[in-house]
Amino acid sequence: MRHTISALVENRFGVLAHVAGLFSSRGFNIDSLSVGETEDPTVSRMTILVNGDDRILEQVTKQLNKLVDVIKVIDLTAEQFTERELLLIKVSTNSENRSEIIQIADVFRANIVDMSPNALTVEATGDEDKINAVISMLRPYGIKEIARTGKVALAREPRAS
Amino acid sequence: MRHTISALVENRFGVLAHVAGLFSSRGFNIDSLSVGETEDPTVSRMTILVNGDDRILEQVTKQLNKLVDVIKVIDLTAEQFTERELLLIKVSTNSENRSEIIQIADVFRANIVDMSPNALTVEATGDEDKINAVISMLRPYGIKEIARTGKVALAREPRAS
Repeated sequence: MRHTISALVENRFGVLAHVAGLFSSRGFNIDSLSVGETEDPTVSRMTILVNGDDRILEQVTKQLNKLVDVIKVIDLTAEQFTERELLLIKVSTNSENRSEIIQIADVFRANIVDMSPNALTVEATGDEDKINAVISMLRPYGIKEIARTGKVALAREPRAS
Repeated sequence: MRHTISALVENRFGVLAHVAGLFSSRGFNIDSLSVGETEDPTVSRMTILVNGDDRILEQVTKQLNKLVDVIKVIDLTAEQFTERELLLIKVSTNSENRSEIIQIADVFRANIVDMSPNALTVEATGDEDKINAVISMLRPYGIKEIARTGKVALAREPRAS
């Protein structure tokens, strides 16, 4: 099963290598990982997507929680959460098909962030399904390069009961 | 000096730990790191922001290029590139100040992605300056949680000369 793990960690060198090493030593491939600063500059948040056996993952989560540099680890999979990813995609273009590509971007509420005679770079955000849909719509024009951030996720707040 | 490193790597377990380990063993702190799939599912792209001595970083880049699982490493710092980051930020709110927050989001072309009686979650994309501006405008309302993806970057295409 696929899991979305959110971890607050100390912003020190070695933490990322440590955490990534723990997953790989247990045979987990990390599908996506994002790490960035939080409101507190000494603390970073990692969002990690892994696929694998639930029981082994529970052990890994416990081990992560024991690391000195790890403040808190949550497996968001069982909770309601908002998940987003950012895509930068550079597509081949020419004066004839440029407006088609701009139209596709508009439909997905994506932005054109760079333009040259032979290429357009599009920025899109959304969940995995939307990002994949953007990529498949743009594929026929010729994809020159792709960069995806990997997912970030925050737990949803409880609604009024 | 701050460097933006873009690396194409084989999508295998252990690669991330390997790359992160190489930086930390040389005393580099990774300010942000994103790793996600590319058009080719066997290949991932990592974007890494590090701060440090230029000469040592050049050595690290050379070492990275020698790793079996690393296909290509580029230091984008010397080139023109498009850089983007995604922010999810959950802010305390109530019926009185909700419209103020929505207005701020509008100005930054940010989206409201979750709403509850006591909180709003805003999604924003942009370069580091813009993301920091969004955070400082929302800080007075009370930040409950932040998740940032870390940056992704693609080289700009040459314009007609």
